[in-house]
Amino acid sequence: MMGLPLAGVFPPIPTPFDERGEVDDRALLENLAHWNTYPLRGYVVLGTNGEAALMDADERAHVLAVAREGIPKERLLIAGTGCQSTRETMAMTARAARCGADAALVLPPSYYKTQMTREALKRHYHAIADAAEIPILVYNMPACTGLDLDLESVVVIAEHPRVVGIKDSGGDTAKLGALRARLGEEFAVLAGSAGFFLPALAVGAVGGVLALANIAPAQCLDMEKRFHGGDIAGAAATQRRMIPANFAVTSRWSVAGLKAAMDMLGLRGGAVRPPLAPLSAQDREELESTLHQAGILPPARRTR
Amino acid sequence: MMGLPLAGVFPPIPTPFDERGEVDDRALLENLAHWNTYPLRGYVVLGTNGEAALMDADERAHVLAVAREGIPKERLLIAGTGCQSTRETMAMTARAARCGADAALVLPPSYYKTQMTREALKRHYHAIADAAEIPILVYNMPACTGLDLDLESVVVIAEHPRVVGIKDSGGDTAKLGALRARLGEEFAVLAGSAGFFLPALAVGAVGGVLALANIAPAQCLDMEKRFHGGDIAGAAATQRRMIPANFAVTSRWSVAGLKAAMDMLGLRGGAVRPPLAPLSAQDREELESTLHQAGILPPARRTR
Amino acid sequence: MMGLPLAGVFPPIPTPFDERGEVDDRALLENLAHWNTYPLRGYVVLGTNGEAALMDADERAHVLAVAREGIPKERLLIAGTGCQSTRETMAMTARAARCGADAALVLPPSYYKTQMTREALKRHYHAIADAAEIPILVYNMPACTGLDLDLESVVVIAEHPRVVGIKDSGGDTAKLGALRARLGEEFAVLAGSAGFFLPALAVGAVGGVLALANIAPAQCLDMEKRFHGGDIAGAAATQRRMIPANFAVTSRWSVAGLKAAMDMLGLRGGAVRPPLAPLSAQDREELESTLHQAGILPPARRTR
Amino acid sequence: MMGLPLAGVFPPIPTPFDERGEVDDRALLENLAHWNTYPLRGYVVLGTNGEAALMDADERAHVLAVAREGIPKERLLIAGTGCQSTRETMAMTARAARCGADAALVLPPSYYKTQMTREALKRHYHAIADAAEIPILVYNMPACTGLDLDLESVVVIAEHPRVVGIKDSGGDTAKLGALRARLGEEFAVLAGSAGFFLPALAVGAVGGVLALANIAPAQCLDMEKRFHGGDIAGAAATQRRMIPANFAVTSRWSVAGLKAAMDMLGLRGGAVRPPLAPLSAQDREELESTLHQAGILPPARRTR
Repeated sequence: MMGLPLAGVFPPIPTPFDERGEVDDRALLENLAHWNTYPLRGYVVLGTNGEAALMDADERAHVLAVAREGIPKERLLIAGTGCQSTRETMAMTARAARCGADAALVLPPSYYKTQMTREALKRHYHAIADAAEIPILVYNMPACTGLDLDLESVVVIAEHPRVVGIKDSGGDTAKLGALRARLGEEFAVLAGSAGFFLPALAVGAVGGVLALANIAPAQCLDMEKRFHGGDIAGAAATQRRMIPANFAVTSRWSVAGLKAAMDMLGLRGGAVRPPLAPLSAQDREELESTLHQAGILPPARRTR
Repeated sequence: MMGLPLAGVFPPIPTPFDERGEVDDRALLENLAHWNTYPLRGYVVLGTNGEAALMDADERAHVLAVAREGIPKERLLIAGTGCQSTRETMAMTARAARCGADAALVLPPSYYKTQMTREALKRHYHAIADAAEIPILVYNMPACTGLDLDLESVVVIAEHPRVVGIKDSGGDTAKLGALRARLGEEFAVLAGSAGFFLPALAVGAVGGVLALANIAPAQCLDMEKRFHGGDIAGAAATQRRMIPANFAVTSRWSVAGLKAAMDMLGLRGGAVRPPLAPLSAQDREELESTLHQAGILPPARRTR
Repeated sequence: MMGLPLAGVFPPIPTPFDERGEVDDRALLENLAHWNTYPLRGYVVLGTNGEAALMDADERAHVLAVAREGIPKERLLIAGTGCQSTRETMAMTARAARCGADAALVLPPSYYKTQMTREALKRHYHAIADAAEIPILVYNMPACTGLDLDLESVVVIAEHPRVVGIKDSGGDTAKLGALRARLGEEFAVLAGSAGFFLPALAVGAVGGVLALANIAPAQCLDMEKRFHGGDIAGAAATQRRMIPANFAVTSRWSVAGLKAAMDMLGLRGGAVRPPLAPLSAQDREELESTLHQAGILPPARRTR
Repeated sequence: MMGLPLAGVFPPIPTPFDERGEVDDRALLENLAHWNTYPLRGYVVLGTNGEAALMDADERAHVLAVAREGIPKERLLIAGTGCQSTRETMAMTARAARCGADAALVLPPSYYKTQMTREALKRHYHAIADAAEIPILVYNMPACTGLDLDLESVVVIAEHPRVVGIKDSGGDTAKLGALRARLGEEFAVLAGSAGFFLPALAVGAVGGVLALANIAPAQCLDMEKRFHGGDIAGAAATQRRMIPANFAVTSRWSVAGLKAAMDMLGLRGGAVRPPLAPLSAQDREELESTLHQAGILPPARRTR
């Protein structure tokens, strides 16, 4: 079970909502059908971009079940299952496994930050891994959790054989390289943002969970392909061209930016759940211009 | 409805769990019976010390219903209802009202930190206040959320007539004074920690939601009484004596420290839910010594 | 020597510069003559508001010598002498003593932040105190240094008999109270900002080093007097009225705001040294309005 | 003048002190003679590792003059000249030029952090660049200054034609890539730490100012050479092997670690200036083991 081949590109897909604010199954499947035309390794469902934090447990399970229908067997479905309590995370992980998830991506509990010592985090992850029927990936997302898993914490968490990798969105490539050096090829290091995908590959990451891959899968795959083919200059050119677009759909406007970009590309983005808010008209214009400059939105597809 | 008299001391009560890790109704009621012998103004149920972040929605509703049984009508039950999504917070607030809560204490959503502009926070709180049947209190808890509501944010949130006050645990007494100056007596400023209760009273806070009041209600009430009676020197002496004990049951050991202290005092503290962990034997000894020095644990009650 | 009576209010005075950007001795003496008409305990010279960080060692010594001329013997001259290296701080402290300073206020070295362990800080302060001929005060100023001295660090630094107190600008009144509880009356705790002067007094501070006292000495002294006279409500009213003005001349516009306010009041504020910049016309208007509302700038004195 | 060819590896060299704590010219020249045997592009003198923050202006000028003697004409001497005030930085930059420096590396002023808006930083750097006779490099060092220059700030600072590049030690490779994309090849992006040298090269950095290059110049040059030769796997292997050693002589033990490592290698490291402190015996053992594992310290050279 543990030999999960995680090399490749994974879009952390958004959850579409209909006009009443409920999960829109059809829109989700349409998006997946589009992404399935690219050689992506799989999908992260119910991550930060999936608005998991804004959905209840039943909705989450529903989204996983629907997504699995739209995701071919040979592609991985990685399910975000992290909750604040160990027991809820266990339950959600079990539910994800029953829905057909291939692995669980687990955020560290962050509410009681001051108590989340290395030892506490180790206990939490190991309890979840002990109970899980699927492999576990650690999800470091300091911009959202306010808690940055350091090298040594990841190393002790990774002692459990069912903890098979990490998605790290913190951007510290020295840490990614150190993880690869300390934990070897068996432990999959995945870049958590397209902003440093090539740097991460350069130090030994096997792939990336990239919000940008939702709207620019070809470009993300191009970086990976050129990197492995030895065309670093070409990969770097793509990397640099993607940074502003990636910034727009992550740090700057987050899910709302990503969904707006999807709408511009003819995908099913749609509304975000409050307290997230849609982009203003001016922000949409700026986003459109950014996507255009990055070559993500072709001139002919411009909506105005 | 809005003229809720909030002056006084409120313990943010822990939720006792039984040996299976489930909510222990009887223990909760026993604790309340004890606290009811002190002239406390009311109770915060399901705050940080109530481990609300580690409980699901049904458990939370159950705890509120049980607590209401143990809390006399003339004492306020303030229910923690903040969730990451606006809609879940609305639903939880409505449920709290049905359970007999007198007000709701609402944490800001903090997962999508970068998107929580002043405008987004205002929309979130006003949507909740619009829908609520009970008054709303803002709950600023930067140590847990990683998000510190600044003066101007609280001022715009407080424009809604149903937002009647704030519990601020950040410790910035200049901000508390500025809030009182800007928003007047009608807006209730409550100190969020006994570590700065007297300083907060000195700048115009009307009371406090004090973890320490669970284990030292007499001392907390003493500070309040001496302050209002003009005995600042006496209040300050108590304040200073309480700081180390307060630190032990908040920043240092959090809920686990508070529950351990309750056990030492003969109250029903009990276990915390993972990922929180019980104190080590050595930490318990240190806690006991701290409580002893503060005069909270009388020599005769020492367990060893 | 160590029994330095530090109870009272100390303005941390700005250093006036002439039109060529050089120290303006006459302006400095004029300002002191004005402040000397108030029962202030003394002055901090070459603190943050003195722009010490923007002056070289010879200029600093010159300012101290001039200031001493304008400061009566019975009032204390506390000289900022903190530098990044231990040896320069020692040298500057010795020079300050020769210029007639009654005590030195010493910032922690903060450039090599990661190396400034409790032990390193203790060694630094103790080496300086060993060599000094005047008492030492610790100067905690996290907003500028990026380094916040915690309770235990101050406690170990204070073990040296020549370390007689602290000016703490961090605003954590619980820490101030804890310092007073741990170190007793012998160790002088001074509030580092007027934003929390009353709260600090309430937990046992003996006074304050207050930027606001440069432009509102009467109000700062009023708070102190009312506090000691038992009129807490009156002190609190003044405290709350002063918070916005204090914010304007500290966190918001720093020295440039303070100097602009001095100009408005007929004192000698003048220019700041780059990279600090003068207030824009719009900011000056806002500052003027703030000072007016606080009652610091009387209607008749409004410049427009 | 501006076409300064900055591609390559630059050790930011330590300043050796003799047993009395004074600058040791001979030791400095001996070290340079050793480093000159490697094809390094040049040297940064008086950076963080040069303990510039702990030296006075005359000492700094002296070190520059001595270093210039030991640095061949065809190698660049980049002098750290940043001070808190604009005028002192100008003066130090002029002095560096007179001492033969080829460029100045300028830290942002950070004491008045809250006032260092983008506009203030632009004015500061442009004033210095206007006055300078040598090109200016921006020096972003958030771990020491507590101030992280963001993308847009660097872009506006770089508008001045005499600002020719940046040494960025923050580790945000997405920002480095964005800088390269926004400012083109003319603006030299230099990695500020060997921890992310290869990632930085991968996004378009032209070189690095690497503390590690003082003790492992061959390995740093190897990364660069393999990268440009298309052997990314080989470069990555070296990169990963260097991360723990780099961590030891930067974040963990800073200059004291670097100097201890130099001593172990037979170079002239020596003492650090207080408040920096030498490594404990145990830390030295751990450092030695780390250097050994990295292949920096050959088995035969082990000192014990």
